Amino acid sequence: MAGIITLTTDFSMSDTYVGMMKGAILSVAPDATLVDLAHDINAHDVLEAAFVIHTSYRYFPPGTVHLVVVDPGVGSVRRRIAMKCGEHYFVGPDNGVFTYMIRSSDGCEAVEIEAPRRNGGLRGVTFEGRDVFAPAAARLALGVPLTELGKPAHDLVTLDIPKPRINESTIEGKIIYIDHFGNCISNIEASHIESLSGSPRVSVAGHDLGSLRSSYADVPVGEPLAIINSLDHLEIAINQGNAEQDLNIKVGTPVRVRTTR
Amino acid sequence: MAGIITLTTDFSMSDTYVGMMKGAILSVAPDATLVDLAHDINAHDVLEAAFVIHTSYRYFPPGTVHLVVVDPGVGSVRRRIAMKCGEHYFVGPDNGVFTYMIRSSDGCEAVEIEAPRRNGGLRGVTFEGRDVFAPAAARLALGVPLTELGKPAHDLVTLDIPKPRINESTIEGKIIYIDHFGNCISNIEASHIESLSGSPRVSVAGHDLGSLRSSYADVPVGEPLAIINSLDHLEIAINQGNAEQDLNIKVGTPVRVRTTR
Amino acid sequence: MAGIITLTTDFSMSDTYVGMMKGAILSVAPDATLVDLAHDINAHDVLEAAFVIHTSYRYFPPGTVHLVVVDPGVGSVRRRIAMKCGEHYFVGPDNGVFTYMIRSSDGCEAVEIEAPRRNGGLRGVTFEGRDVFAPAAARLALGVPLTELGKPAHDLVTLDIPKPRINESTIEGKIIYIDHFGNCISNIEASHIESLSGSPRVSVAGHDLGSLRSSYADVPVGEPLAIINSLDHLEIAINQGNAEQDLNIKVGTPVRVRTTR
Repeated sequence: MAGIITLTTDFSMSDTYVGMMKGAILSVAPDATLVDLAHDINAHDVLEAAFVIHTSYRYFPPGTVHLVVVDPGVGSVRRRIAMKCGEHYFVGPDNGVFTYMIRSSDGCEAVEIEAPRRNGGLRGVTFEGRDVFAPAAARLALGVPLTELGKPAHDLVTLDIPKPRINESTIEGKIIYIDHFGNCISNIEASHIESLSGSPRVSVAGHDLGSLRSSYADVPVGEPLAIINSLDHLEIAINQGNAEQDLNIKVGTPVRVRTTR
Repeated sequence: MAGIITLTTDFSMSDTYVGMMKGAILSVAPDATLVDLAHDINAHDVLEAAFVIHTSYRYFPPGTVHLVVVDPGVGSVRRRIAMKCGEHYFVGPDNGVFTYMIRSSDGCEAVEIEAPRRNGGLRGVTFEGRDVFAPAAARLALGVPLTELGKPAHDLVTLDIPKPRINESTIEGKIIYIDHFGNCISNIEASHIESLSGSPRVSVAGHDLGSLRSSYADVPVGEPLAIINSLDHLEIAINQGNAEQDLNIKVGTPVRVRTTR
Repeated sequence: MAGIITLTTDFSMSDTYVGMMKGAILSVAPDATLVDLAHDINAHDVLEAAFVIHTSYRYFPPGTVHLVVVDPGVGSVRRRIAMKCGEHYFVGPDNGVFTYMIRSSDGCEAVEIEAPRRNGGLRGVTFEGRDVFAPAAARLALGVPLTELGKPAHDLVTLDIPKPRINESTIEGKIIYIDHFGNCISNIEASHIESLSGSPRVSVAGHDLGSLRSSYADVPVGEPLAIINSLDHLEIAINQGNAEQDLNIKVGTPVRVRTTR
């Protein structure tokens, strides 16, 4: 029995690129369980994809293979990698999309997937998602050991992910992801706020949101709030409303936490 | 072997919330078959979700578990329920999203899913779709008896669903759902029309659509028609066209059926 | 064990029509593996659907059943067919959506799926995707022989698919599909260009794109290029950009290849 493979791309579902990748997986591992994680990543936005896979992979069972193909440099010389980090497998381009896992304390074991040879003619251009990454993910889902997929890879590419600036009584962060409800997720994590002493208050885009709430329903319908969300990140939301629109927040908008004693 | 679980949410597929729920299901029931029913429900629109699950669940095999998470009151005190209605299982918030099943003559057996305890710190905010409803659905798909999920729940919440006004020779209803083709589905059902005597004629938004047709192709391309659709509801459509746009119909637009002798 | 079924429709995923079809399949073949190939085909665009299934089906394993429901003439008298072409099965309306397979040198064996009888009352209008095509696809996935689905069908409908005009030193084609990245795919195939002698240069919409490239990364970021893509079709793209928008290309825009010696 083959295992679970999640798919994260910027291919959207409008075209059949995702379907072709699934066909390629099922050609190798007919019993694999395929789960679409996200296909509406902004085109070529490696930073968004890195955040998405980082915050989602842990809700899948140990042994799951996570296939991520968001790749502005398609066809260039960047490596193709397969990794094991903790109990999860990751397959995709070595372009920083796995930055969070690579930096985590668990550490990762990575191999470079061998590039297929072009035959030199007009035909046979490689769609790496379908022709390289999908079969590699399928083999891992079948239980093929990582080391059979290629030679060890070191010095993996990591992105310069923006971190909040933290001092004794304030944290200066920013919005890094906005979901389709308009909830605005910042790069400030629960652990950052726990490091402060005193009672935290949150402000964003000129709005003082007061202290942290423990549920959207803690404020009246239509009112804004700040909450540590279910991903353990500080989030700005409006109860039954759209914070992105109503508070005019964008990816990159600064968020400030300060403590009062 | 685990069974089938359908998923209906207002989470869209742009974010990874649906993917996380699937990860949580597969962590409990790795063999479950997952089917996306609808994720583009308007945000917090419990009435739309109620219609969607009501008209769709019956096409799945007996024993299927239907997970519905459309929940404006997330984090508030409303109950979390699991139900068996006829041969189908339903899991979601007790906010009226299952109104149609609860009111059907078959009746339902319901239990209240126990709420997880918060640890009191900043972390661990519950995403109920992922942390409560998904595992409950997974257990039902594994064959765990309903009664093991919680204590019996009574007096379930139901919505005030708009019903058509019916008298001897007329039915006054309204549009309750518009599909992506622009086909406009009303709250008038086949059984309502069967109760009339005489030959029914349909009008909407100032347009007389004549008598009921039995196929879109019964009128020329581009012409409007009224039909009892495959959900047994009265639908206004345009053959190969978009009735919503061309007839200027919205959710709530009145629809009238009158009989002539 | 049931096999793989792919689904291609113009139903979108906003409504539950696709979900209902999956329910109908799983009611017949509970173990079938379902893969969404494309559901955002333009409404009633049989030509687009024909291109999409033609370019995608081959990446699935032999024995896969491809269910395609894009059908402007729903409810009219066109036949419902199931076919075997090479090692793949196809199920859908006989409206030309399978033109490419029917014309391929392999040839196809086709049967006409028997139409369900209407009971004559108001109810029970057929949604053919759910009530006819889905169960037929499910039976094929279970291994039921094609000939048990209906009587042999001949003279299948084919579309007049636009072909490029080719002479000794030029090819005049046009754009037939634009993907969500804005990459513009033409009806000129690798084999057409191979038939030319000399070195091909490509122009489109007043832009000379020079010779064929072998990778998007062969030009600087933001620059246009012409490439034989992974479907073996001539494609106009912009490295990390959107050719549709930046070069003002539409479906139907002429593309020209000429050779220099």
